[in-house]
Formats: sequence, structure tokens, C-alpha cells
Amino acid sequence: MKDKIMEIIEKNKGLVREGFVADYIPALSKANPNNIGVSIVDLNGNIYNVGDYNEKFTIQSISKVLSLILALLDHGEEKVFNKVGYEPTDEPFNTIYKLDFNWNKPSNPMINSGAIVTTSLIKGNGDEKINRILDLIKVMTGNPNVSIDEEVYLSEKETGNRNRAMAYLLKSKGILSGDVEEILDTYFKQCSIQVTSFDLAKIGLFIAKGCPLETKGLIDNARIAAIVTAIMFTSGMYNFSGEYAVNVGIPSKSGVGGGILGVVPGNYGIGIYGPALDRYGNSSVGYGIIRDLSQHLKLNILSR
Amino acid sequence: MKDKIMEIIEKNKGLVREGFVADYIPALSKANPNNIGVSIVDLNGNIYNVGDYNEKFTIQSISKVLSLILALLDHGEEKVFNKVGYEPTDEPFNTIYKLDFNWNKPSNPMINSGAIVTTSLIKGNGDEKINRILDLIKVMTGNPNVSIDEEVYLSEKETGNRNRAMAYLLKSKGILSGDVEEILDTYFKQCSIQVTSFDLAKIGLFIAKGCPLETKGLIDNARIAAIVTAIMFTSGMYNFSGEYAVNVGIPSKSGVGGGILGVVPGNYGIGIYGPALDRYGNSSVGYGIIRDLSQHLKLNILSR
Amino acid sequence: MKDKIMEIIEKNKGLVREGFVADYIPALSKANPNNIGVSIVDLNGNIYNVGDYNEKFTIQSISKVLSLILALLDHGEEKVFNKVGYEPTDEPFNTIYKLDFNWNKPSNPMINSGAIVTTSLIKGNGDEKINRILDLIKVMTGNPNVSIDEEVYLSEKETGNRNRAMAYLLKSKGILSGDVEEILDTYFKQCSIQVTSFDLAKIGLFIAKGCPLETKGLIDNARIAAIVTAIMFTSGMYNFSGEYAVNVGIPSKSGVGGGILGVVPGNYGIGIYGPALDRYGNSSVGYGIIRDLSQHLKLNILSR
Amino acid sequence: MKDKIMEIIEKNKGLVREGFVADYIPALSKANPNNIGVSIVDLNGNIYNVGDYNEKFTIQSISKVLSLILALLDHGEEKVFNKVGYEPTDEPFNTIYKLDFNWNKPSNPMINSGAIVTTSLIKGNGDEKINRILDLIKVMTGNPNVSIDEEVYLSEKETGNRNRAMAYLLKSKGILSGDVEEILDTYFKQCSIQVTSFDLAKIGLFIAKGCPLETKGLIDNARIAAIVTAIMFTSGMYNFSGEYAVNVGIPSKSGVGGGILGVVPGNYGIGIYGPALDRYGNSSVGYGIIRDLSQHLKLNILSR
Repeated sequence: MKDKIMEIIEKNKGLVREGFVADYIPALSKANPNNIGVSIVDLNGNIYNVGDYNEKFTIQSISKVLSLILALLDHGEEKVFNKVGYEPTDEPFNTIYKLDFNWNKPSNPMINSGAIVTTSLIKGNGDEKINRILDLIKVMTGNPNVSIDEEVYLSEKETGNRNRAMAYLLKSKGILSGDVEEILDTYFKQCSIQVTSFDLAKIGLFIAKGCPLETKGLIDNARIAAIVTAIMFTSGMYNFSGEYAVNVGIPSKSGVGGGILGVVPGNYGIGIYGPALDRYGNSSVGYGIIRDLSQHLKLNILSR
Repeated sequence: MKDKIMEIIEKNKGLVREGFVADYIPALSKANPNNIGVSIVDLNGNIYNVGDYNEKFTIQSISKVLSLILALLDHGEEKVFNKVGYEPTDEPFNTIYKLDFNWNKPSNPMINSGAIVTTSLIKGNGDEKINRILDLIKVMTGNPNVSIDEEVYLSEKETGNRNRAMAYLLKSKGILSGDVEEILDTYFKQCSIQVTSFDLAKIGLFIAKGCPLETKGLIDNARIAAIVTAIMFTSGMYNFSGEYAVNVGIPSKSGVGGGILGVVPGNYGIGIYGPALDRYGNSSVGYGIIRDLSQHLKLNILSR
Repeated sequence: MKDKIMEIIEKNKGLVREGFVADYIPALSKANPNNIGVSIVDLNGNIYNVGDYNEKFTIQSISKVLSLILALLDHGEEKVFNKVGYEPTDEPFNTIYKLDFNWNKPSNPMINSGAIVTTSLIKGNGDEKINRILDLIKVMTGNPNVSIDEEVYLSEKETGNRNRAMAYLLKSKGILSGDVEEILDTYFKQCSIQVTSFDLAKIGLFIAKGCPLETKGLIDNARIAAIVTAIMFTSGMYNFSGEYAVNVGIPSKSGVGGGILGVVPGNYGIGIYGPALDRYGNSSVGYGIIRDLSQHLKLNILSR
Repeated sequence: MKDKIMEIIEKNKGLVREGFVADYIPALSKANPNNIGVSIVDLNGNIYNVGDYNEKFTIQSISKVLSLILALLDHGEEKVFNKVGYEPTDEPFNTIYKLDFNWNKPSNPMINSGAIVTTSLIKGNGDEKINRILDLIKVMTGNPNVSIDEEVYLSEKETGNRNRAMAYLLKSKGILSGDVEEILDTYFKQCSIQVTSFDLAKIGLFIAKGCPLETKGLIDNARIAAIVTAIMFTSGMYNFSGEYAVNVGIPSKSGVGGGILGVVPGNYGIGIYGPALDRYGNSSVGYGIIRDLSQHLKLNILSR
């Protein structure tokens, strides 16, 4: 298996040159585009870690999966989806304009405006919210050292005026409750959590197992996993999700830090790292690798 | 099995009252909202037909699946997706406005503008195009009597000015080649093809088997099936596709005639009929039935 | 006066090089960008014709003024403005997207969609509509030879798919009554009427005098002139109308044939020709000339 | 003259019942809808004050005229209009969506986003900006007691999330320089300045005289007056400006406090107060009164 993964990495590593490391904040631009980490874990406890699987990077948009899980736990499905939709969109992750039309809520929890809503729904005062996100990752990964990259967080906070615009618009429409800057602060922090591809694989496996959380929420663990997995499938890869579904067929979520989280329900968790991004914001080499893995391991849920 | 289906129909038939039969043309409004037909066929040759499975209705948007298949056969994946996207949209099926922005092409082949594009790509002169669609359905269903409802066709043609607007806009942008009225004529005809829930189930099974067409196209049959199935999953149920993916998890396509086509890859073809529609344009009772079928038969591809 | 006009032409003729002759149809692209015609006529019967004032060009969007006048005559103010707005827009003349939102009607009669509406409101069967437009120009100009450029008309008709898209969308929304292709045919013909800068000046003077039509319509002549003049002021120069109002201050309407029609209420009619267009679709040299004329002759209605 | 004004008030006062006092903040909703104040001042020093001309109300959007004047003084025309357009829009004053498209700047300085830009361009630190606006009004009106309604200011600040969204979006696009909350603070304060209809009339006369400011700016006083007057004409009455131009023909600016400022270049300044608003946000009775005044006094600049 490791050999096969290495072969797939080798085959795809040229894709690094087709992407560009995110540079909207200086801290991100320092990433080495040639780093490639691939981690696969399965239900039987097998672990396959290849390449730069120990390299840390910020989780960025993949954190949207975590805030959706916590929002669902805290408020249940109906209340959450009163404030954010289930529907995939053909717009980029940072789109604003539709919020100015008749639409009452963001299209789905995987675009920024939708994730700001789910973050606002996480219960807790002050640092409690971000600590609950960190704790969730610790439970999922068994890694007690997960922490925030302070430099990235401060940069996100300083430059996050587009997210701020969304949040104030959502506030003006009554979709966001609570203090906007506090919600954004949690949002910028959750995007700045440092993980490795191995961490992502373990997060993926946790969801693949049906989110076996010990804490009782307002919704079954299995239902949380079902919702999250379906929304990752239709909306997890930005406005490339449709093409990705055709070519990969694995519920996934990417982040501009270069990570891809994959969930093969009942089987595998997958984590990939490759910081050079394509024009949608997905890891260019990561896409190539997971496409080949899907084919080789027959992971496409539409053709299993 | 039939008993279970009948039980599920019984449980859901109240949903009829939550929907309304399409009435934008008189011919459609004559449908009996209380008709419910459910057909399931599987790879082993089992056939389960319950209720009004012999009732004929027009295929409407479900024909978008067929024109996509023929466009792919005739031109291959690259050329087709140069003119229409793979991406699901949060807009209704008859949206126009984005075509006026920078977008170069319709978001996907399951909205009207995208289907007008795939229909334009079907090779053939005059009636050849529509005859090829009819022939494809005959091959898929083994039903040699599939034909067009002339009354519906003429009404669609007469009232189809919104589709006409889309088509001329696509023409002005160079996305549509050929005579616009001729393309629209085929489009209106394909929407007016009469089918039964049993026909739909057989179409679904054909795709579930990997589209075993005898004619050689520019693309593998299995790849056609993979593309079609994935796009049905992300975009097949109008701007309800995301919520449907969460609650049903079966690649499906609906039409305002009241039909739902379901494809369970490698297993089942499903056809449901119930002409009362919800506000998205999907059969209200059909949605309830397929949701329960998915749960009962464990058909959700995300949790099989 | 003529000397002053010649001086102003001389000063501005370099602007020709900043524009481009319209080339979306071959017939227009043949225009000589160096042609410059300026005509001014006043209430006292003085006529100032300078340069290429005898050069014929197609009236294009300036015809929107004429179809608005006839629509008002035939239906009165209320009915016309039930179907088209009074409001200037920051969108280009060929915008479509807003018609797909909640808006019930085109923003104003000076953009294409609005002019298609006013053309549809001109009474008459078959060629009557276009003949009434031609007759109106003949009355206004005293020129019995005004006619249609057949080559331009046929090209407009052949390539006018964007206008066709608008018209069918308006039809689908119930804003347009009658046969769409027939309305478009009149529209393409009215755009293809040949005029000179002298003709335009006389049209301008006619409006400046309060539209002294002999035929009785459903609305006073003076009210027609007031409406037309105000709408020309706020919307006549495409999405440059606001800047033009600041710098020129004369109710005007331009066309992509290179003409500018100016109306100084109670004083002057102005016609300018210069086929090289700026990025908004206005004559580049024409704009420079009328700006200087406005300053020199103190024609700015905001500072008279 | 006063008798005529009283007659016009009498004729129009029923329009009060067609409007509604702004209630988005409690402080505004306390206004008495039956208050009607009309003030006209002319170049010869005549003053006509009728009705509730001593009633104070907040200037609201009419302050956009003042921030435009100061921005022009401080930076000159080119720099200001690099950051905000001259073009009228058919969108409401609080529109956001276009800022999310390719547009680089707000359409004009009379919509909120455009006024936030001009306010940002007023030079000064901390309270200097708002003090310069107050000083300008004092110079224009000769009223040394002009001040801010603290209750309105605090309410605007608290509920102004939609304006906040615009400002952060403009900041993210590089159109807004400086601290966003500080700019918004000035903006909320300038909207909360208390004036009377008499104050407005004197402001109008000041502009009608060509803005005879003693301080030297980067632009001629006459040019400032020309720009401001033209933009008021095309964009001053929200997305009713086009219809208002047809029916009134006086450069004007309204505010949701119920005020209308009118400028008849070279002749009159007009101030009207009537807090019940129509659906565009203009004083319903104020519109009726100024329409009749325009007709009676022949103030329409298009037909003088």
C-alpha cells in the first residue's frame, strides 16, 4: 500500500508546478510547495503515512466541517438549517452578492458566509468556542498538541475585511446573533489551527465511523456524520465540487493551507497535504493524488 | 418487497396534498394528483411495480439525462464540458442571469440552459436528434412504444419563451451552434416524451449497469455512467439537490411531469410517479417515498 | 459661429484616435473614423452646418427617442411607464440580468430592453410601425428621403441574438405583447434608419420646441417633450450619462452609428457625427465637441 | 408668494397619509408625520418660510452632498472620482451586491457606499472630519447652532451593520483607506446633524450661488457646484431620481429624516420638511409640494 501511495505521489508531483501557494497573508506564502504528505487510516487500525505527513499547516476551510458538527450538536438540524442552506453553489467560497438579494441565508456551510453562521452557533463564551473546536480535533485525532498558529491568526484577523463584510451583512439580516467581532475572532482562530495530513486522516476516519462522540447533543452522531458527509460531497471542494464528484467521488473538504480531508464512509479517513493551489483554492497535487487513490482503491462512492 | 413499497406509499400519500400539479401549460394540469406509481428493478431481473406504474406522464427534465448521454457519446467529455459546466448551482432550473455575467457557460447540464446546450450537441439533422433520444429510451426500456405527447409538445413550444431567451443568449455568446429554433424544437419534444414509472426504473437500471450501449461513442460507456450519475447526485433535483443528497443519497433526476428517476450504481433502477410538485419542482410524494425506500433498502450511497 | 464650431472641431479631432468604429456588423465598420459633422439649428431659423454634415450614418440607439415619442402618443404616459421605468441605470445598454430578478420591467426606454418595449407599443400592423417612425422623422426634419440602410438592417437582424434573448424574456414575463420577431424586425429597422448630423439637429430642435406634432395623441405635446428631454438627460448617453451630465449638461442621445442628438429646450437642436466610439458606445470626438460647445455657448441647463 | 406656498401645502397635505415615518431606529419614529415645513430663499435675499420651518430633523442622506463637497475640496475631481463613479443607478441607496462584481467603485456619491467613500476622503483626524462638515453647514446657513442629535447618532451606530458591511467590503477592495470604524463614526454623525427646512434652503442657495467658499481647495468653487448639482439631478432622489427629473426637474437631495434640499442654479435654494416617506425613502408630501412649486414658479431646469 505504501509503495502504491509513493508511486501515485511520484506520478502526480508535477502538478505542484500548476498551482500557487496562497499568498494573501505572508505567513501562508512561506509554505514549501514541494511538500507532499499523504495519510490513510482505516477501520481496522491500519495507518499509511507517506512523505511529509508530519509537516504542519493551517487547517483553514477544513475547519468548516468542525464548526458544522458543533453547531449541529448544540442546536440540532432544524435550527442550524434555518440559518444556512444545504445547497451547493457555483459561486466561489467568498461570494457575497447573493446575501444582498432575497435569499435569507448562505447557500451552505462550506462557503465562508455559511461557516461564519455555524461558528456563531457554537455555544460558549469568549475562548470557549475555539477551545471546543480544538477539543473536538483532539478527540478525533488523539493528538493533544493541536494548537493555533498565532501568526496566521493575527494576519487573518487583520486582512479579513471581506469576511467582516459578510458577517455584518448577515448580522443586519438577523441571521447572525451575538457580537460580530467575537464570532469573527473564533472564525479566524479556527482557520489557523495547525494540523498534519495524519491529523486530517484521523478526522476523516472519525467521521467515516459515524462521529462516535461521547457527549450527547441534540442530534444522533450518525445523523451528524450523514449530513456532514453529504454536504462535503456536494460542496466541499469550493466551486469545483461538481467536477471533483465526477472524478474522485469521495466526500472531501479542502483548505487554502493545502490540506484535503477525505471521508470514505465505513472505511477510510484520508489526509493529504500539498500547499500549491489551483484556481479554485484546492491543492493541485492533492487533487491528482486523491483522484488516483480513488481509482486504485475503488473508493468512489458512486461506483463501489 | 411489494408489501413494503405499498406500506411506504401508504405512509407518504398525504404528501400529495402538500404539492401542486404543474399548470404552466393546460396539458400538464390535467394530471391526477392522487396517482402514485413506484417501480424498482434490480440487476438480478427482479421487478417490483406498485400502484399507478402504468400511468403515462411526460418525462420533462429527466430527458436532460438522455441528452447529456448522447452529447457525450457524440463529442466526448472535453468538448461537452467546454460548453457546459459540471457544477451544481443554488439557482432554480430556469435561471438566466448568470449567463449575462462573465460566466462562459451554463453551470451544469441539469438546468435548462445546460440541457439546451447538450441537446444542441446531439448529432443529426431535423428529426434525427429527437429520434435518437427516442431510440435511446427504447433501448434502455425495451419499450418500443415510447412516443411524444403532441399536446404537451405544442404547448411547451408555444409558451417556452423563457427557454427561448436562454437559447438566444447562449447563441449570442457563441456557446450554441446551429439553428436556435431547431434546437429548441428538439428540446421541447424531448421534454414531451411519455413514460411510465416502470420505464424510468428501467432507464435507471441501464445507467446503474454502466450504460451498456452497443454503439461506440467517443467515450467509454462506464465513464458516461460515472459522469451522469455524479451530476445527477449533485444537481439532479433542482436547487433542492443538496438537501436531497443529505436525506436520500441516491443519484436522481426529477421532472415537472411528476417523475423521479433513481440510479443505485451496480444495484437498482428506480422510477416514481406523483404529479403534485413541491416548490422546487420535485414530486412531493415521490420525495417522501424515495427517502423511505433509501432508508429501508439501505440505498444511500454515502452509508452503504 | 461657424468659425467657432470649426475651431472646436479642430481642437477635438485628435479624439478620433481614442475611439473605435463599431464593428459588430461589417456594414458599420466601413465608416470613415475621420468624418466629423456638426450641425446646430436654433429657434430663429439659423442653421450652422460644418464638416461632414451631409454624411449619412445609421441612427441606431437615437431611434429610441422616436419610439418613446410614438409609444407615448399611442398609449399615454401611465400605460407606457407601466411597462418600462423612468430610472437611469449604471448598466450597459444591452444588460439582461436584472430582467431575471424581481424587476418587472426594463429600467428606462434608453436601454435596449426598454426600447424594445416602446417599439412594441407603437400601433400598427406589419410595416406600419416602421413607416410611422420614418414619417415622424420626415415631419421633424422636413427631409422626405429618410430611409433604411438595408445592409445594416439585415446584419442587425442576423446578429441580434442578444436583443432577441431580451425580447423573449420580456415576452415570458408578460411585458411584451404581440409577435416577438415582428417587434424585433421593427426594432432592427428603426436602428438602421439613415440620417445626417443636420437631420439630427432638426430632430433636436423639434423636441426643443416642445414636439409640435399636428396629430393628437393621448398626451400633450409639451408633456412628451418634457418626458423625453428629462430621460435623455439622465439616461441618454448609456452608462456614461452621469459623467456627461456633469460635463455637458445637455439632454442628449447617442447611437453606435456615431451620432449624438442634443436638445437645448427652447433654444437649439444639435446633431453631431463622428463614428469612432469610446468604451461606452458614444462618439469620442462627438463628446469632446459637444462639451466645448456647451461651455462656449452656455448651453448647460444646470448653469444657464 | 407665501400664500401660494400655503395653498400648495394645503393641496398636498393629504400625501402625508401615503407615507410612513422611518422607524428603523426609535428616535426617528417619534417624528410627527403632520409636520410640514417649506422654505424658499432667493438670490435677492427674499426669504419665504411657511409652516413648520423651525422644526428640527436629522439631515440623513442630504449630508452626502456635504461630504462630496469636502472630498472635492480636499482631493480634487480626479482623485475623488477614481474611487466613486458619476453614474446614477436603478438600485436602492443601500445596495451592496454590485460591489461584489467586477465594479471597482460605488456607482455615485449619493448612495450609501459612495458617501462612505467621500466621507473617508474628508481630511482630518478624529473629530476634525465631522467638525469640518458642521463648519461647512454653519458657513452655508449662517446658523452657529447646528449640532448632532446624539440619540439618533447612537442608534445609527448601533444598527448600522449594513453600512458596516459595505465599508468593510470597500476596505477589502482597497477603495477605502483609513480605519473603517472611524470613517463609519463620522458617517453616522453626519447623518445625525439636526437641521430645519430653513437651513436646507440656505444650503441650497449657497450651492445655487456657485459654492462661494472662502477656503481655497484643489478645485474651483464653480466646478464643485456644477458637479454637485448635476449629480443631485441624476441621483439625488434615490432610485426615484429619473421619475423626479421628469416631474420636478430641480437638482435635489432627500433624506430619510424627511428633508428635501432643492437647488435652482442661479436663483433659489429650497428646503422642505415632511417626515412621512414613500417607498423610495423620499418625503411623500415633500415630493408633491416641490412638484407643484416647480410648476408654479417655473423652476424646472429643462423648461426654463
